[in-house]
Amino acid sequence: MTQRIKIVLDEKEIPREWYNIQADMPNPMRPPLHPGTLEPIKPEELGAIFPMNLVEQEMSTERWIKIPEPVMEKLAIWRPSPLYRAVNFEKAIGTKCKIYYKNEGVSPAGSHKPNSAIPQAYYNKISGVKRLTTETGAGQWGCALSMACQMFGLDLKVYMVRISFEQKPFRKIMMETWGAKCVPSPSNDTAVGRQILKDFPDTPGSLAIAISEAIEDAVSSKDTKYSLGSVLNFVCLHQTVIGLEAEKQMKIAGDYPDVVVGCVGGGSNFAGIAFPYIRDRIHGKNVRIVGVEPNACPTMTKGPFIYDFGDMTKLTPLMPMYSLGHSFVPAPLHAGGLRYHGVSPLVSQLLNDKLMEAKAVNQLDCYKYGVMWARSEGFIPAPETTHAITAAAEEALQADAEGKEKTILFCWSGHGLMDLAGYEKYFSGTLTNYELPDHEIEKSLASLKGYPKI
Amino acid sequence: MTQRIKIVLDEKEIPREWYNIQADMPNPMRPPLHPGTLEPIKPEELGAIFPMNLVEQEMSTERWIKIPEPVMEKLAIWRPSPLYRAVNFEKAIGTKCKIYYKNEGVSPAGSHKPNSAIPQAYYNKISGVKRLTTETGAGQWGCALSMACQMFGLDLKVYMVRISFEQKPFRKIMMETWGAKCVPSPSNDTAVGRQILKDFPDTPGSLAIAISEAIEDAVSSKDTKYSLGSVLNFVCLHQTVIGLEAEKQMKIAGDYPDVVVGCVGGGSNFAGIAFPYIRDRIHGKNVRIVGVEPNACPTMTKGPFIYDFGDMTKLTPLMPMYSLGHSFVPAPLHAGGLRYHGVSPLVSQLLNDKLMEAKAVNQLDCYKYGVMWARSEGFIPAPETTHAITAAAEEALQADAEGKEKTILFCWSGHGLMDLAGYEKYFSGTLTNYELPDHEIEKSLASLKGYPKI
Repeated sequence: MTQRIKIVLDEKEIPREWYNIQADMPNPMRPPLHPGTLEPIKPEELGAIFPMNLVEQEMSTERWIKIPEPVMEKLAIWRPSPLYRAVNFEKAIGTKCKIYYKNEGVSPAGSHKPNSAIPQAYYNKISGVKRLTTETGAGQWGCALSMACQMFGLDLKVYMVRISFEQKPFRKIMMETWGAKCVPSPSNDTAVGRQILKDFPDTPGSLAIAISEAIEDAVSSKDTKYSLGSVLNFVCLHQTVIGLEAEKQMKIAGDYPDVVVGCVGGGSNFAGIAFPYIRDRIHGKNVRIVGVEPNACPTMTKGPFIYDFGDMTKLTPLMPMYSLGHSFVPAPLHAGGLRYHGVSPLVSQLLNDKLMEAKAVNQLDCYKYGVMWARSEGFIPAPETTHAITAAAEEALQADAEGKEKTILFCWSGHGLMDLAGYEKYFSGTLTNYELPDHEIEKSLASLKGYPKI
Repeated sequence: MTQRIKIVLDEKEIPREWYNIQADMPNPMRPPLHPGTLEPIKPEELGAIFPMNLVEQEMSTERWIKIPEPVMEKLAIWRPSPLYRAVNFEKAIGTKCKIYYKNEGVSPAGSHKPNSAIPQAYYNKISGVKRLTTETGAGQWGCALSMACQMFGLDLKVYMVRISFEQKPFRKIMMETWGAKCVPSPSNDTAVGRQILKDFPDTPGSLAIAISEAIEDAVSSKDTKYSLGSVLNFVCLHQTVIGLEAEKQMKIAGDYPDVVVGCVGGGSNFAGIAFPYIRDRIHGKNVRIVGVEPNACPTMTKGPFIYDFGDMTKLTPLMPMYSLGHSFVPAPLHAGGLRYHGVSPLVSQLLNDKLMEAKAVNQLDCYKYGVMWARSEGFIPAPETTHAITAAAEEALQADAEGKEKTILFCWSGHGLMDLAGYEKYFSGTLTNYELPDHEIEKSLASLKGYPKI
């Protein structure tokens, strides 16, 4: 064949160590604050909800952290993931740029999420934990952790945002197939859930509510810890296998990206593809890094950099992050994984330090490019992934307009086979764009009055 | 890692030629017969529904047939598919045998079906065809051909068995995402469909009915041909990339299979994994080949080797095959892809020549092993694929009982993410086994009275 379209690596090429960007950041991270005392949180306090080995990872500034052998063995089920040159999509949009993508949809759960679910299940297991709780929005994280818990012999209860639970009944069956229990949130199983159901019986739920329920369950149950699929430092750390593999594959392809793109909800798949390249940028390489979000939930592009809670009922520490406020309830767009009020503190600090850029795109453009993608490259992208596709396409077309031939790399975070209802709405013409008015953000942020500022 | 669990190949290792087992079969194939004259059908008569380049492939006895470059380029989107050692499933069932599987679920459509959809779309395109029609049961073939037609710029209309159409609404959206039109069969769009709807307004439909509709549409429409996803010689030919890759990968693993297993509906994924190994068997190698079917549709294990039609209304040629009779309506088991009354003439001849064995398994065992698979290996198998898993597991446990350590290779034909409703029924305890009574087969075969015998 004249045109090589993908680079596969042998499983012995899976990275042996995760890359911790804290070792290279020009400005140190601000500490998370205890929700009660508002003082920097102590490791043993975080130990109430996470096992200490993960708490140590959360706080570590070591550059390289060894991936344990039992984790390597499970990652090898689908890793290294293939890197593709999207030659057919390039033709479809008519660009002269080169577009590469790292296909994280090849995991059994269909997304990048198992990259952190596997090590989280492992570290909990070796700490003597018997059961985990978590929340899920679109269902990608709930599925990934269900599979991981089954592999390491842990029980799991998933609180799934009610509107997603009802719209995507098959996600629950996937989790059950992997042995987990999944309930719609808010549920009657927690005090938080019962209270919200009493006050708002028709609530569609939100990630912030589901996190509150999962944490309450974890701290009040025996041998149980809580697990989170994004935002945290150690989750971003675990995802760096994506970018570390991509570096090797781009070398084999004989290319280096001018632009690296990832969609951002909590920030973990973005961190995965981007952090190794941000290291290059810190060391003087000329590479732009772009995080993409929906303009219906414009955390990075319209939110301030503040201390905010990760959940609705203020059970989590206050984290330094770009945020729309923990009480923000985003519009019901289809990319459920991008409907989070905050963004990873690591990503936030890097954005604040101008080591990356943020960009917002609208839902209809995303489906337009998502359909073009499916019809040219074959793989049907998840609604979240269409945001990265859209930004990559816009980067390419912009470069064409400027007469430049750029090389663009993005993270194809997952497939959309469990999210086809969104495509159906798009084809039927009932899908709309939603741009968040500024006064809604102001309203939501008002609840942070009196809390520490950055 | 101590245990290597998968063998990936670079895309330059995709086979450049398909393997045609007709070159090596000890007994020649009996000719298909014209449905009207009952005489051996002439190539130009087949040309009414297929383009002549595919008709030539259907009749070829050349051992190796070159894969055209534009087909290679599309196959490279997901091929070579990985070969896995199922170490975690081996542990789960407690066997000392080695179980290898070829993961065909990695294609964009989620199954092996694109291996033939891509070349069929290509050969039609270069013959000047503008539009294809086809049928689909579970939806795997309809999706694969939708993607392939989109890639080569052909229109496509898919007649989907009504009961599957209603049970799996997302399959239709997948096909539409790839630009095809999909209607439930029987439909009001054909004379055959209207007649059946008039006589049996509540019919759930069948593959044999849907084939009749698709053929009627093709022969009565301009620039339109018909496409079939299994059964035919050229479909089996296209699928041999599976086994040819597996041979290379098994060599890298340093193993050779004692047993090769594939599930059999029309027979195409089985042909893909098995034919290269049947060639070895013909040349004296000690390898057993096992085709697995549901005992609710026991074509190979209970049907006679006869001349029968491929569709309900006798539009297709009479083909020499094991069959339960073209009027047979199988029980509504979840493995929709295994609910076909006949089996590929090539596979039938090989079975008749004792170059392979046939085995039937029941639905509840299949789901039991399917769930064990998902919980150990991660990937959730399609209902069809659980039949191959079950047979592989039973082979392994039988070998254990005999004190033998066998090497088993099977084709993992596709993932089950679009078929989770079956898992839900299994978990809820509402799924049952169904064994076909002999008198039903006799009744169905009675309609062949007066037609030529083998």
